[in-house]
Amino acid sequence: MALKAQVLYDFTAEPGNNELTVREGETITVTNKNIGGGWIEAQNSRGEVGLVPEDYIEFSKSASSFPPAATTAPTPSVGNVASQDLAFFDAYAPASTPAQNQASNGNDPWSAWNTDPSGGSNNNWASNPEGTQTGRTASDPWASVSQGHPQAYQGPGAEDDEWDDEWDDVKSNAGYADSEAGDSGAMQRGGAHATSMKISLNKFPGFSKSGPELYLLCKQLTKSKDRLPVYMGEVGAVWFYPETQLDCVVADPKKGSKMYGLKSYIEYQITPNTTNRPVNHRYKHFDWLYERLLDKYGSAIPIPSLPDKQVTGRFEEEFIKMRMERLQGWMTRMCRHPVISNSEVFQLFLTYKDEKDWKMGKRKAEKDETVGVMIFSTIEPEAPDMDVIEVEQKCEQFSRFTKAMDDGVKEILTVGHEHWKRCTGPLPKEYQRIGKAFQNLSSVFTSSGYQGESTLTDAMTAAGKTYEEIAQLVAEQPKKDLHSLMETNNEYKGLLGCFPDTIGVHKAAIDKVKEGDKLVATSKITPQEKVTMAKRVSTMSYSLQAEMNHFHSNRIYDYNRVMQLYLEEQAKFYETIAAKLRQAHSQFTTM
Amino acid sequence: MALKAQVLYDFTAEPGNNELTVREGETITVTNKNIGGGWIEAQNSRGEVGLVPEDYIEFSKSASSFPPAATTAPTPSVGNVASQDLAFFDAYAPASTPAQNQASNGNDPWSAWNTDPSGGSNNNWASNPEGTQTGRTASDPWASVSQGHPQAYQGPGAEDDEWDDEWDDVKSNAGYADSEAGDSGAMQRGGAHATSMKISLNKFPGFSKSGPELYLLCKQLTKSKDRLPVYMGEVGAVWFYPETQLDCVVADPKKGSKMYGLKSYIEYQITPNTTNRPVNHRYKHFDWLYERLLDKYGSAIPIPSLPDKQVTGRFEEEFIKMRMERLQGWMTRMCRHPVISNSEVFQLFLTYKDEKDWKMGKRKAEKDETVGVMIFSTIEPEAPDMDVIEVEQKCEQFSRFTKAMDDGVKEILTVGHEHWKRCTGPLPKEYQRIGKAFQNLSSVFTSSGYQGESTLTDAMTAAGKTYEEIAQLVAEQPKKDLHSLMETNNEYKGLLGCFPDTIGVHKAAIDKVKEGDKLVATSKITPQEKVTMAKRVSTMSYSLQAEMNHFHSNRIYDYNRVMQLYLEEQAKFYETIAAKLRQAHSQFTTM
Repeated sequence: MALKAQVLYDFTAEPGNNELTVREGETITVTNKNIGGGWIEAQNSRGEVGLVPEDYIEFSKSASSFPPAATTAPTPSVGNVASQDLAFFDAYAPASTPAQNQASNGNDPWSAWNTDPSGGSNNNWASNPEGTQTGRTASDPWASVSQGHPQAYQGPGAEDDEWDDEWDDVKSNAGYADSEAGDSGAMQRGGAHATSMKISLNKFPGFSKSGPELYLLCKQLTKSKDRLPVYMGEVGAVWFYPETQLDCVVADPKKGSKMYGLKSYIEYQITPNTTNRPVNHRYKHFDWLYERLLDKYGSAIPIPSLPDKQVTGRFEEEFIKMRMERLQGWMTRMCRHPVISNSEVFQLFLTYKDEKDWKMGKRKAEKDETVGVMIFSTIEPEAPDMDVIEVEQKCEQFSRFTKAMDDGVKEILTVGHEHWKRCTGPLPKEYQRIGKAFQNLSSVFTSSGYQGESTLTDAMTAAGKTYEEIAQLVAEQPKKDLHSLMETNNEYKGLLGCFPDTIGVHKAAIDKVKEGDKLVATSKITPQEKVTMAKRVSTMSYSLQAEMNHFHSNRIYDYNRVMQLYLEEQAKFYETIAAKLRQAHSQFTTM
Repeated sequence: MALKAQVLYDFTAEPGNNELTVREGETITVTNKNIGGGWIEAQNSRGEVGLVPEDYIEFSKSASSFPPAATTAPTPSVGNVASQDLAFFDAYAPASTPAQNQASNGNDPWSAWNTDPSGGSNNNWASNPEGTQTGRTASDPWASVSQGHPQAYQGPGAEDDEWDDEWDDVKSNAGYADSEAGDSGAMQRGGAHATSMKISLNKFPGFSKSGPELYLLCKQLTKSKDRLPVYMGEVGAVWFYPETQLDCVVADPKKGSKMYGLKSYIEYQITPNTTNRPVNHRYKHFDWLYERLLDKYGSAIPIPSLPDKQVTGRFEEEFIKMRMERLQGWMTRMCRHPVISNSEVFQLFLTYKDEKDWKMGKRKAEKDETVGVMIFSTIEPEAPDMDVIEVEQKCEQFSRFTKAMDDGVKEILTVGHEHWKRCTGPLPKEYQRIGKAFQNLSSVFTSSGYQGESTLTDAMTAAGKTYEEIAQLVAEQPKKDLHSLMETNNEYKGLLGCFPDTIGVHKAAIDKVKEGDKLVATSKITPQEKVTMAKRVSTMSYSLQAEMNHFHSNRIYDYNRVMQLYLEEQAKFYETIAAKLRQAHSQFTTM
């Protein structure tokens, strides 16, 4: 009797990875529980076989007493082995999974994005700006600040085993379900991932009640060598910027495989401009870096999420290219950040010498205790303390701005997405039909038997072909211009989605400082502690101001660049069409 | 008790004419039967009051014994008079009738056209090409050749009264119902009108059985002074072309009114290049001319229908402009035709000296007996007689070509219509939204409080405005280029819709000639008559060849011209957009 399982969460197979797309509520037959590494092999009702993360399924009640995978399980029957072999070949058939089919909609890489302004991701901004904890919904990312985030990054432990295991891009993030509620379909995990940092603070058991007090009231600030000065520059508070800007190139994706070819992964080559020596990393390594940066800097610096796991691409090559492009974008942004780029963990990622060096650095990073709000203990503003009222005003200004920009960016994504669909769908089809109609009429004219109309019919045929060429140009144009515009705005959407978390930490701190008198009166804190808290919230504010100024300067650079690129390519596009039409026009007889 | 009536046929009110739109099957209340001139005043169930042609209604059974309008009828009650007065004002309210609302669809003058290839008008071509009379449907225009056309133009009679009566554009063409069956909605009359010539042969009682025999077997050919020679030119048989081509300008539409302002009409000024002296005509005069030309030349020359009565235009001015443009197109085509332009009736229309001259000429034209197939008796080919087999081959070639071109033209109309809708609807809306999105983001940026980003925000605002301008350009472009392309193809659709009738006459004649031996054997005709018939069908063929060559030469001229115009305007359009984008691009900082 086959072992049945219920699917708990949607899982979308990654192309070429021998995985099986399953949907929540679906019943599957487990064909091999001994795959290991958190995977099982299963067959769906259509007979398709592939790997599914074991955390995504629940063994059916009749079989619920079976232990989970990686422990002893019945040896698969001969029949199951056969279907497993079949699956190995089936999974390489292109466009065979629903996920791939979904992604093929007009070849629009944004078709799966949740750009609906009423969508769940917007809840980031709809949450209570006063920082009170009443009325917070499960999909409210502010909730993660105060309640911690169950099963978000699990923190250091036995992960060295995991590190070398066979999975690459999919981790057991079933715990994200709380923020998935507002999203939909295949993008559930990706959508949640993209719009909120999920600051991981559950290392500090008391945090869910105490929040930023951990920093505001801590007895002694660690004299870290990773001191983060904030200077007063022309535009106000600024981070310390290195003379040479770090940069790196993500390139040369190579396929590797594990488990006798059952699981494959992609390794990227990352070459920093400092050493010019390439290092190799898999997506999961990027993910590890992301979690480390989020852990350490997330309260002070919005750490944009990694590119979505389910980015599109009808074919594996396209998928890999798209992911690489986005990893490059993410790395570039991290390199541009003076605090991140200079951090030990980021330097480790880019410049580790060998496996041993890497593993040691990794362990050290995971043991770092200057994480969460404690990052503020390393910040040293070279400026007079600010009044809490001014701190609050600044914070609210940043909150308003990032919220407004988030709306603006989403509007561009929404209209850009629709424009993409039109330009790759109905519009070129119409130009093609116009072209065909001209050519058809021309061929009717050719059949007239009337003398001397070949000039007309040749010209009409050419005009028809011109419109077919225009159809092609129209369909291909979005990749040349709209793509960059969308990618940049999508990056900013991700970045802006991190601000509610970051700003939330600041708002909670401000609230605490404003309660100072009351806390002293009720003997919750000493008068000295009240003074310390006010000083520390000022430090936090300089940190936020430096970060906002960094954000603005990057924003100006990025939008200047992307708008120029867009308009340049658009102008070229219309010029090309005009030239083609002039050429077609010239073939008619002048009368 | 109010007098009720049933509406027999759809009637669409003409804007500003105080008319009432009614639909087949609707019950209306007659508020004034004494309007005269073929009109009654009625009120519909929504309380709207206006004029309706009396031929379009049937008095309800309870009142069926009432004599029709213009004879004694009950004096309207005071209440009815009041509603009549109201109606007088109501009817001038803009956009108040369903017809006007229908026409407002994207401001597309083709929205009401039946471009559906499966539509009724296509039945012209689906009819039996063998010329047999079995299986002809009521909507088959070939039927009109053999069966005559009940209540189509009524022929000369007491029409001098009608001539001066108050109606302008609507005539009692209830008898068109047979060909209306295949069409639908507001275009019923217009559609039927546009796609078939309705050769009027009912002056000859025996014709419905004898068809072209009337000419093939007539004893003596009238030695008309209107001799129509056919020469052999470079391209084959050709009409005699005058040295100077006649042309005219239709301009200066003026509103006149009758019946104390209750009915208004438009008078157009037509100035021929020969006399350079303008004459005035109303639409009904054009219609009279059309009927005369159809009567006289329709068997030999496809006479395109006048512009549809229900051409669009949301406002009266637009409607008048559109009709004038199309009347100009129709007149230009008639002027270009060597036979038509030289005809007495056409010359009368263009050059009558005064009212008396016009009335005399009119009476004479209406008494002309060289009509229908008898037109062939005036044709004198200067070429050797053709064998009936060759005649048949030519005829079939023309039939195939005109059918194929009809399909091609309709395809262009269909796709052009869709393109029009897209260019005036969703596409500019999208560009506008892109423009708004850029401007919105720019104004968010302006609120950042960050120094020195006005270059970026100014440039982004300008880029946004550029896209709004592009939206405007896109929406206005169809009027500049697609309009001409559509008008030309629509004209050709009308012209091609006449060919089945014309070719049908020829096919019927060919069939008769091919029966020659049998007819001699059964003593239906003499051997001499058989010879005469063969000679005459050859004459008919030369006439058709000359007409086809005329058609081809015009076609080449027209399509060369319209394609050039279209491509020229399209190229300019794209160049304008490209220039705007370059300008917008230049406002960004070069980096």
